[in-house]
Amino acid sequence: MPTFKLTLAYDGTTFIGWQRQAAGASIQGLLEEVLEKLDKRPVPVAGAGRTDAGVHALGQVASVTLQRDIDADTLRRALNANLPAEIRVTEVSEAPAGFHARFASTSKVYRYRIWNAEVLDPFERAYVWHVPSPRLDADAMDAAARLLEGTHDFSSFQGTGATTVTAVRTLLSSRVTRAPAPRHGGAGAEPAPLLTYEVHGTGFLKHMVRSIAGTLVEVGRGRRDPQSMIGILAKQSRACAGETAPPAGLFLVRVSYGSPDL
Amino acid sequence: MPTFKLTLAYDGTTFIGWQRQAAGASIQGLLEEVLEKLDKRPVPVAGAGRTDAGVHALGQVASVTLQRDIDADTLRRALNANLPAEIRVTEVSEAPAGFHARFASTSKVYRYRIWNAEVLDPFERAYVWHVPSPRLDADAMDAAARLLEGTHDFSSFQGTGATTVTAVRTLLSSRVTRAPAPRHGGAGAEPAPLLTYEVHGTGFLKHMVRSIAGTLVEVGRGRRDPQSMIGILAKQSRACAGETAPPAGLFLVRVSYGSPDL
Repeated sequence: MPTFKLTLAYDGTTFIGWQRQAAGASIQGLLEEVLEKLDKRPVPVAGAGRTDAGVHALGQVASVTLQRDIDADTLRRALNANLPAEIRVTEVSEAPAGFHARFASTSKVYRYRIWNAEVLDPFERAYVWHVPSPRLDADAMDAAARLLEGTHDFSSFQGTGATTVTAVRTLLSSRVTRAPAPRHGGAGAEPAPLLTYEVHGTGFLKHMVRSIAGTLVEVGRGRRDPQSMIGILAKQSRACAGETAPPAGLFLVRVSYGSPDL
Repeated sequence: MPTFKLTLAYDGTTFIGWQRQAAGASIQGLLEEVLEKLDKRPVPVAGAGRTDAGVHALGQVASVTLQRDIDADTLRRALNANLPAEIRVTEVSEAPAGFHARFASTSKVYRYRIWNAEVLDPFERAYVWHVPSPRLDADAMDAAARLLEGTHDFSSFQGTGATTVTAVRTLLSSRVTRAPAPRHGGAGAEPAPLLTYEVHGTGFLKHMVRSIAGTLVEVGRGRRDPQSMIGILAKQSRACAGETAPPAGLFLVRVSYGSPDL
């Protein structure tokens, strides 16, 4: 009964999200289908983060326990041979019995990408939020983002329908940078059209990164002051924060585990 | 009757190629449709390079002459508002009467991208040729590529059905590099999985870059010696060179014009 830690990258564009649902293709559902064929019995897959429809992953982590004796490399190859090209298992390693990708995770990094130029690079259309104008004030956004570092009640940035006991979460780092355009760079001469919000935290609420990103863009437009983040946190009400940014800009970058075995 | 130079970026994945054909969506066809509505009469669009189905562009150039008096910025915005997100007009400038994007061009740069690692980054699946193994010898490929620099008869690298008078072309630069993985980088720990062949020439034959790329990969696999390129050129026969590499890896990067007005 070996237990495995799977690291996954996926283009979330065409999926209903990580989580299996009654209808539609989910990443968890596709993994469970392939694993059921391999192990000749249902294999539940636990994911570290429940990415929504259209959200991408560079380093999602999942855990599975199989009946069958199989080595990590063979499992990785079998999964990649049977999954669509939009989902790749980049690493498989054996994990201690009882390892659970979500409960064992100690922190996660998410990245939210904003294309801030009139013409959207066609190669970026499914991987950014397009905010054509005005030119966003990245320094103000960064100042606002940094005010979220530390331990706070993030109720104001929590999507409706959440069922968590507490909205208190800890952000180790929360930063905005304006980066040069990536490789394809086909979108004209405008300098550095890409804004990136990167956040490292020990835990996240439903829609939390997208709600923060939506609020940061309002700061970048000059509609909110960076300092207003403090008041938004204090009010503990979703209505105080900005809109939920669209899913295409969001990437689950990395999941960390405290144990040196993982 | 203003004449315009349009610079275009497009994701070629879902198109039948640049050129209008009886059936299917082409970049030229979509541009001509939008321009016909705008100018209330058929507007022929001339492209600098006829990219094939699945081939991408970062800097394709096209020329059009309109009846209607319109400024360059308004034209760019009107085109982008009516074209699918896969095609973006990144620049429009007024050009001298009679400007023809293909006949006036003095050189072009193409890039061919090869993903040389077992696991293909899901975000790269439509933008590379996946050669999972063996690890290609980039130095040998670069040595082979450089032997094509200069003026040669490229008949051995010309697709069938070509109708050009001469196969003599001049390559100003022809180089292979192994680059670090681009931004998404979700495909595991292997170092530098991306190989790039970049070629700058005053003219290209049908399938020329893809035929060269296919031959270079055979050099990279150790099946051909870099020096064999000289013999392939000399034989002037398509059968001597390697396979035509798949279209997804190819990008038309840039088109140059000698005139300072362009």
